[in-house]
Amino acid sequence: MKKIGILTGGGDAPGLNAVIRAAVLTARQQYGWEVVGIREGFDGLIGGKPTIELTESNVYDLLARGGTILGAANRGNPFARPIEQADGKVVYTDVSHEALDRMNDLGLDGLIVAGGDGTLSIGQRLVDLGAPIVGVPKTIDNDVAATDFTFGFNTAITTATEALEKLQTTAESHHRVMVLEVMGRDSGWIALFAGIAGGADAILIPEIPFSVHVICDKIAQIRANGRQHSLVVVAEGAKPVDGKQLYYNMGSREMDKRLGGIGYIVGNHLAECHDAEVRVTVLGHVQRGGQPTPRDRLLATGFGASAVHLIHEEKWGDMVALKGTEITTVSIKDAIAMKFVNPDSYWVTIARDLGIVFG
Amino acid sequence: MKKIGILTGGGDAPGLNAVIRAAVLTARQQYGWEVVGIREGFDGLIGGKPTIELTESNVYDLLARGGTILGAANRGNPFARPIEQADGKVVYTDVSHEALDRMNDLGLDGLIVAGGDGTLSIGQRLVDLGAPIVGVPKTIDNDVAATDFTFGFNTAITTATEALEKLQTTAESHHRVMVLEVMGRDSGWIALFAGIAGGADAILIPEIPFSVHVICDKIAQIRANGRQHSLVVVAEGAKPVDGKQLYYNMGSREMDKRLGGIGYIVGNHLAECHDAEVRVTVLGHVQRGGQPTPRDRLLATGFGASAVHLIHEEKWGDMVALKGTEITTVSIKDAIAMKFVNPDSYWVTIARDLGIVFG
Amino acid sequence: MKKIGILTGGGDAPGLNAVIRAAVLTARQQYGWEVVGIREGFDGLIGGKPTIELTESNVYDLLARGGTILGAANRGNPFARPIEQADGKVVYTDVSHEALDRMNDLGLDGLIVAGGDGTLSIGQRLVDLGAPIVGVPKTIDNDVAATDFTFGFNTAITTATEALEKLQTTAESHHRVMVLEVMGRDSGWIALFAGIAGGADAILIPEIPFSVHVICDKIAQIRANGRQHSLVVVAEGAKPVDGKQLYYNMGSREMDKRLGGIGYIVGNHLAECHDAEVRVTVLGHVQRGGQPTPRDRLLATGFGASAVHLIHEEKWGDMVALKGTEITTVSIKDAIAMKFVNPDSYWVTIARDLGIVFG
Amino acid sequence: MKKIGILTGGGDAPGLNAVIRAAVLTARQQYGWEVVGIREGFDGLIGGKPTIELTESNVYDLLARGGTILGAANRGNPFARPIEQADGKVVYTDVSHEALDRMNDLGLDGLIVAGGDGTLSIGQRLVDLGAPIVGVPKTIDNDVAATDFTFGFNTAITTATEALEKLQTTAESHHRVMVLEVMGRDSGWIALFAGIAGGADAILIPEIPFSVHVICDKIAQIRANGRQHSLVVVAEGAKPVDGKQLYYNMGSREMDKRLGGIGYIVGNHLAECHDAEVRVTVLGHVQRGGQPTPRDRLLATGFGASAVHLIHEEKWGDMVALKGTEITTVSIKDAIAMKFVNPDSYWVTIARDLGIVFG
Repeated sequence: MKKIGILTGGGDAPGLNAVIRAAVLTARQQYGWEVVGIREGFDGLIGGKPTIELTESNVYDLLARGGTILGAANRGNPFARPIEQADGKVVYTDVSHEALDRMNDLGLDGLIVAGGDGTLSIGQRLVDLGAPIVGVPKTIDNDVAATDFTFGFNTAITTATEALEKLQTTAESHHRVMVLEVMGRDSGWIALFAGIAGGADAILIPEIPFSVHVICDKIAQIRANGRQHSLVVVAEGAKPVDGKQLYYNMGSREMDKRLGGIGYIVGNHLAECHDAEVRVTVLGHVQRGGQPTPRDRLLATGFGASAVHLIHEEKWGDMVALKGTEITTVSIKDAIAMKFVNPDSYWVTIARDLGIVFG
Repeated sequence: MKKIGILTGGGDAPGLNAVIRAAVLTARQQYGWEVVGIREGFDGLIGGKPTIELTESNVYDLLARGGTILGAANRGNPFARPIEQADGKVVYTDVSHEALDRMNDLGLDGLIVAGGDGTLSIGQRLVDLGAPIVGVPKTIDNDVAATDFTFGFNTAITTATEALEKLQTTAESHHRVMVLEVMGRDSGWIALFAGIAGGADAILIPEIPFSVHVICDKIAQIRANGRQHSLVVVAEGAKPVDGKQLYYNMGSREMDKRLGGIGYIVGNHLAECHDAEVRVTVLGHVQRGGQPTPRDRLLATGFGASAVHLIHEEKWGDMVALKGTEITTVSIKDAIAMKFVNPDSYWVTIARDLGIVFG
Repeated sequence: MKKIGILTGGGDAPGLNAVIRAAVLTARQQYGWEVVGIREGFDGLIGGKPTIELTESNVYDLLARGGTILGAANRGNPFARPIEQADGKVVYTDVSHEALDRMNDLGLDGLIVAGGDGTLSIGQRLVDLGAPIVGVPKTIDNDVAATDFTFGFNTAITTATEALEKLQTTAESHHRVMVLEVMGRDSGWIALFAGIAGGADAILIPEIPFSVHVICDKIAQIRANGRQHSLVVVAEGAKPVDGKQLYYNMGSREMDKRLGGIGYIVGNHLAECHDAEVRVTVLGHVQRGGQPTPRDRLLATGFGASAVHLIHEEKWGDMVALKGTEITTVSIKDAIAMKFVNPDSYWVTIARDLGIVFG
Repeated sequence: MKKIGILTGGGDAPGLNAVIRAAVLTARQQYGWEVVGIREGFDGLIGGKPTIELTESNVYDLLARGGTILGAANRGNPFARPIEQADGKVVYTDVSHEALDRMNDLGLDGLIVAGGDGTLSIGQRLVDLGAPIVGVPKTIDNDVAATDFTFGFNTAITTATEALEKLQTTAESHHRVMVLEVMGRDSGWIALFAGIAGGADAILIPEIPFSVHVICDKIAQIRANGRQHSLVVVAEGAKPVDGKQLYYNMGSREMDKRLGGIGYIVGNHLAECHDAEVRVTVLGHVQRGGQPTPRDRLLATGFGASAVHLIHEEKWGDMVALKGTEITTVSIKDAIAMKFVNPDSYWVTIARDLGIVFG
């Protein structure tokens, strides 16, 4: 009987627990293997934390549960572990051999690593050193090149779309411009999809630098046509077209007084170009938490089950990925490139068709 | 300036209104066309019902609204219209020329037909007669071969999954077997996807004939392992393996006394093979109504916008379809074949990996 | 240090787990008491099932979780326990002394009994025999006289209202009459409140016998005014005015062919008096399951905490109840009378003001 | 036939449209009156904006719709209207006679004013001048003394509770302290109720000044007992116990770098007293928008219908209010006092019982 492990790393994403559940059920029911959970990602692996035996009964209620019961380390890179010296200085040390040793000590015939590009890269380097590791991509941002979608992304756009719906009713009642800042430091997938699904008038994303006056003109045109309110979605990594730092004027306009991120900066500029009230909401961490949507449960379940088959086939260094309606396999090496929103791509064009501006 | 029309036919599906909105916005903002809505499907077209002028302002709030503001005819086949004679008899008459005449009278340069296989087939036959028609596939059952997914399907599986979650808590508290009958007369997509996302123990679908004793054995095994409750999802078109009509015993078992569909029949048999309480719920029409999920809003929006581009390109007889992450074009003729759940296909295999039985 | 127990009995109700959590937190953090959970209601108490020690850590995630981790017995009346004889006959025996003995054996200084009128009545009889018991009322039907509201009721009307919303969009698209049968064998609270919140045109409840022709007339009037669809909510215990058994005609009308409960019977009659399609949905068990709404979590939390204070004050035979915005105490004896919808009462009058008919 | 008007003023609150719908249905169906909607609150009344005729058909879909179709003025006080002079200065002028004249011109036999304390006070002053006005209290903050609850409040605590649930899963996975800032400048009702329903460990409200070290100690105690994460809810008007301005240290701690409101200030201090990651979310405007919950639809419907009866009874200067399970009448004069959370009151005590600290 084989014994396999599973660890989760990086930021939270709804569906991680569903991955764990599906992996445990598949390994045990399909192959009769033993499964242990490694707590706190690579930190827990090299730190020697006790593992958790995972069986049908303790994964029973994980399908719809947000977060990860295994925890997720934030500093657990075995190739550069921060170790505090006697003099208080921190030295980064390669302790990757400890990771391999621990896997041996635990008797693991395979390890599923569910994580973002950082976590998967570490997994790949351990594979290069001989570790039997397979990967599951995880990011709510949907910015992994090798897969059509990642789990957690549908949950994030659902949360963001619901926020837009709530803002819309107040915008309409009060003739306001509502700005919603959503996650997306490098890629604009959440802003793009939630913006379309939530009826935004403008969507600002990192991949398409914006000019404030384009948004102002759009809002002016909407008002000229008789609608007195509008919705603007801003990814946190959106940038102005001229590279110039936008200023934040803590002036007399009636808007939130916080010195803030790009959402507030955009909101401030919009308040200046219009005789309208502007309100800014930063959606923040609620986007990465909560129960996964049914779609994300399906995707996460497919990923977890398929990762176990990868171990069965000893495809070390491979990871699971969604292509169309099925789950396939790609090599982690090829796969961890980021996926950006192409300004000429399908959904941007659709959005422009509807009259949405990108700045 | 061109003038185009749009009509919706067949059963309700969440996202129809989002198709209408996207088509109107794209036609007007991208091409500067006029758009009219044909009410009550082909009935309204041939019946001469007044059309509705569709503009930005009257589609403004349609993105998240369930149903279709245009209505959906149920008997509107212009090739076989039921016409009552003086003697009360109904004669089916080909009035397709009236449909063509009406399109001419209305001055339509193109017509978007959003509907299921029946409605699309009619559209195709009108194309054969020279009508400038393009199609949008619509079914909550996801059983159209040419498209990865149809809008409304994600909403339906979300509704069904939420029902399973609600049943699960009661099942657990009372040690019950809960049977949920979901839609799917010919195909089992809703049952399959909601079953996986909702943690079902058995999924019965039309494509895989079932034996009650397999479900009984599965439940017995679950109970032997310490879990006292279970969930069974049944598509309304599920059939027993031996083709024999299952009987419904209105006996003394404590279960719902309704003589019913397959859900009740399965429930009745499960009550006989176990010393457990069985409860049956028929989810029914709530699956086809309500607000579309953000994902269905996206898909419907992409379909509506893309259909307008098909008209621009004069691709009569073509319809929009989802392939992977983008929307493509297929001919209605090739496309209206049904898509069934292949018993050896990916998601069935995933489900079996998890221990779910299909009977 | 005192030791108290808690048991849950009767049907499932969202919020039971929140009661358990609040009782445990209050008992331990406020008074420093030990708490054990009795499994499977009075069955578990007299049957000698092992108890569960309840601490902060194992009630941590119970606030939003549906069902009851303690399970709920269905036959556990210690005053009439069904005991199978050698000859197979079942004899009902008073084993109430075993309940008292078990409480002594467990060293319980107090026991919280959360349940419906059946469970609470048993609790009261045990109090009469000297048991230190306090009560928490539990029913999703809201039909307990002594409390303004019970937990679970808000969750049930939310589920029923959401179902009405989903049915409404399809009704509107297809010009249908939609009938929704909701729970309520003896009282019509769920039908009344969900009907008002979901925009029903007719509400049929046990307390107000109905005439089908009144509903028919209402629907006719609505259609005459230009609206082609309508919604009818029927409590499962609704009864016709003349006491005559309504028949169910499995005729040629296009409606669900199931021989069913009152929902189908009403639907069948409406199909006869109108040239309209009628569809019937029986909401069933989804109404009693699932996560409690925030309001039900609050109410259940208040009940659980307050029940512990009742034990502190040794108010045996008392139970908690909501009055206005605060939780008060009543005696179980006085309290377990049922609360019906008075036909002349406030919310019925409000509903009539809006044009809703009751038949 | 009488003719009545309705206007909505002040901030948005889910349920305003349900008030309008119920008032229109009751006035027309019960009394046969004509109803007109005054747009943009008192601004629209004195500004002479065209009114909207309100009938069954144009209020049909308002029950579940957020916002107010009538709009809500922000500066429309007829007793102090800002009028710009030739030299650009703004002079506040009493134009209340214009409000009375307009009501006469419109032929209103009664006017329903739905608004917060500002709007209702204006209504009362107009009553003193002879205007036939009745009131409907409106605030999501629940801080009106005369009514047990206001509509919109249940929706707001539902939104805030759902945000807490989403934050909880991420907090648990990453061992974080999550701070959620909710609405409540002067009263802490939203923070208190959402905090209890969402499982908060600390709740900071305007009515109970807080010491950061109390929160720090609570978190330390939780961690000592084995739970590595915690949730803190902060009302935007929460204040430190010593009146001293808390500083905001933009130091090296890993937390959001925005100079912000009390949420960020509290978060910053907690980051200093713990070796834990702290994340701050400001929920903002999403709390006042969106569809009302079924409970808020009921309450708003009851208020709207009852306000019409007040007009029938010519109870000028009275307003509707919830007491227990029914809707009663109070005089606006007596009623517009604010309702604060009493630190010794029932729900604060319940929260303390559970171990929640208030600082």
